[in-house]
Amino acid sequence: MAADSRPKTMTVEEQAVFLAALEERRQQVYDYLNGWPGAAGFKPPEIHDAIYSYLRRRGKALRPLALLLSCGAVGGDESQALPAAAAIEVFHTWTLVHDDIIDRDDLRRGQPTVHAQFAAHARERYGLDADQAAHYGRAVAILAGDSQQSWAFALLGDLVNRGVRAELVVELVRRMATSLTPQLLEGEMLDVQFALTPDNSVGEQQVLDMLTKKTGALLEYAAWCGATIGLAGRPDPEDLAGRLGRFAALCGTAFQLRDDILGLTGDESKLGKPVGSDIREGKRTLIVHMALANGSKRDKARIIGALGNPAATTGDLDDALAAIKDSGALGKVEELANSLISQADALLDGLPDTPQRGLLGSWASFLLARQY
Amino acid sequence: MAADSRPKTMTVEEQAVFLAALEERRQQVYDYLNGWPGAAGFKPPEIHDAIYSYLRRRGKALRPLALLLSCGAVGGDESQALPAAAAIEVFHTWTLVHDDIIDRDDLRRGQPTVHAQFAAHARERYGLDADQAAHYGRAVAILAGDSQQSWAFALLGDLVNRGVRAELVVELVRRMATSLTPQLLEGEMLDVQFALTPDNSVGEQQVLDMLTKKTGALLEYAAWCGATIGLAGRPDPEDLAGRLGRFAALCGTAFQLRDDILGLTGDESKLGKPVGSDIREGKRTLIVHMALANGSKRDKARIIGALGNPAATTGDLDDALAAIKDSGALGKVEELANSLISQADALLDGLPDTPQRGLLGSWASFLLARQY
Repeated sequence: MAADSRPKTMTVEEQAVFLAALEERRQQVYDYLNGWPGAAGFKPPEIHDAIYSYLRRRGKALRPLALLLSCGAVGGDESQALPAAAAIEVFHTWTLVHDDIIDRDDLRRGQPTVHAQFAAHARERYGLDADQAAHYGRAVAILAGDSQQSWAFALLGDLVNRGVRAELVVELVRRMATSLTPQLLEGEMLDVQFALTPDNSVGEQQVLDMLTKKTGALLEYAAWCGATIGLAGRPDPEDLAGRLGRFAALCGTAFQLRDDILGLTGDESKLGKPVGSDIREGKRTLIVHMALANGSKRDKARIIGALGNPAATTGDLDDALAAIKDSGALGKVEELANSLISQADALLDGLPDTPQRGLLGSWASFLLARQY
Repeated sequence: MAADSRPKTMTVEEQAVFLAALEERRQQVYDYLNGWPGAAGFKPPEIHDAIYSYLRRRGKALRPLALLLSCGAVGGDESQALPAAAAIEVFHTWTLVHDDIIDRDDLRRGQPTVHAQFAAHARERYGLDADQAAHYGRAVAILAGDSQQSWAFALLGDLVNRGVRAELVVELVRRMATSLTPQLLEGEMLDVQFALTPDNSVGEQQVLDMLTKKTGALLEYAAWCGATIGLAGRPDPEDLAGRLGRFAALCGTAFQLRDDILGLTGDESKLGKPVGSDIREGKRTLIVHMALANGSKRDKARIIGALGNPAATTGDLDDALAAIKDSGALGKVEELANSLISQADALLDGLPDTPQRGLLGSWASFLLARQY
């Protein structure tokens, strides 16, 4: 692992500047969402609560930040892009609500997922049994996510109120609808299918492609969208919008690879889930793929014994983890993540020198510096 | 029941003209959907299949027809509105795919629903057990419906290719996102909740409001959208777009009331489901509400014994049906449907005399003449 391809470390001062910039924009995005007049149409109260459930818990708003900074980085007025930043946060949220049903996850940001929350609600309010309550919870989560998807498009529509030309808004809507959504959902579907597919029949490139779609596509759209608003139809001979999009996508994919590493090596209390739970769930991370492809016959058997096996004991999991470490897969994936980060850095270096470019560098460091 | 408020009967000639007009436009809409270039992005193959599943079975395309005729009825060029007609068919389809999960329906247009189809697929391909396969089927159906929602917005975006001004396209997107979706999903959520709510605590107006949102809102949007494209920004002092929207919404609500009547009195073989199955499922139709509100104490007890009771025998159902008939609720609901139709007719009569106005009259007759 080459030291110079690690994510750049921020100075204390840079970090303070970045965190202030992040918090300011995060506040703007959430103020916009909480004050959105159309929310009066989110009815009945259960649907309103479900739609705002994850938003009340507030994410770090790193996607909206990428959008706003990309707008500024091409000389645009960030405040004009605010509704699009809000759209990206809502778009991300609907994918989480539906993904949590599919992954049968019960916790999100330390609290019940939407479907779990409303299953509990149905037991209390209607006295339903466990199966019926789970079904009711899923129904609320499906409908709330559906409503949020439309909300994201509505928020893009709000851009005309801030003087963004209608032609541009239509372009943003079309790219969200024809490129972002299909890519992201393909990534989710492949993730489900790979976990059910016999080991080794899924190739390294397929796994990388899946996680680029699942994580990179939304960040690519966010940065491209912000830059496109910022350019406001001006010619873009250097393809700044495309380059910012690729920069953000590379960082997103690198983040996902790091996240997979942390899932196997991180600190359980900070991780919010047991170390190795990805293995028990059969999650086909790139690490697992590489370990199966390159490990010894004995290592492979140790991994397969626990992979996707709900009955795997802690001992089985420890054994599988040890086999993965022995295979060298962790180092290889770390190396790949670093190479993606180098490519991202190079793209950023080619942009005009603006405060936003500096903040985008800090954004990448912040995204990638998680040490659980 | 006043004879003059029955839906108008078409002459044989009118019927032939109408059916030819319907079939021509239906073909255009489905050709547009089947040839849509962006469909190459619907991946992997399971998602592509799921997205096109109901579309391959072809609905009657009555919603797209309402849109296209409304465009022509205000003097617009129907061919310009074709992408919006396709958008409406796809929008309707995603709501069906998700609704079928929520209602646990296994059949749609005589074939397996998307979630049932892919549960069967998962059993074969991955050898999953019943619970896991059902979960996989739901995952595919959730993701396919999500993809279809975005597709509907993408199709609205296609309008710019046919010379519709971008400002108008943004207006259509915003109304779909901020008004149509929340209304329709509110209707679906209330439908689920009312079925779980103790008898009589749901009021007649609430039930009517629920089904207006669930069925009327989409037709209202379709007609308004077609007229708005047809008007192309020209002043609309007589609010033709709004009147066409209300006309279609009234027909949709009347259709739903008729559908509920047929569900209790129709011919089982044409209905595609057992007569009275709505009662066993606890569906809170307006008929059931009125029967509970107005029936004798004994009739009420006979209805409540079967309502939402999966263990209800055929005898119990027959008894509940007899009680509903005794209560006079069927006649009252038929009367209400006829009054809505009269209001719709009056709205239509006020429109300029065009071939499309005549066809919209036939459209209403066709929609409402179902005799199962």
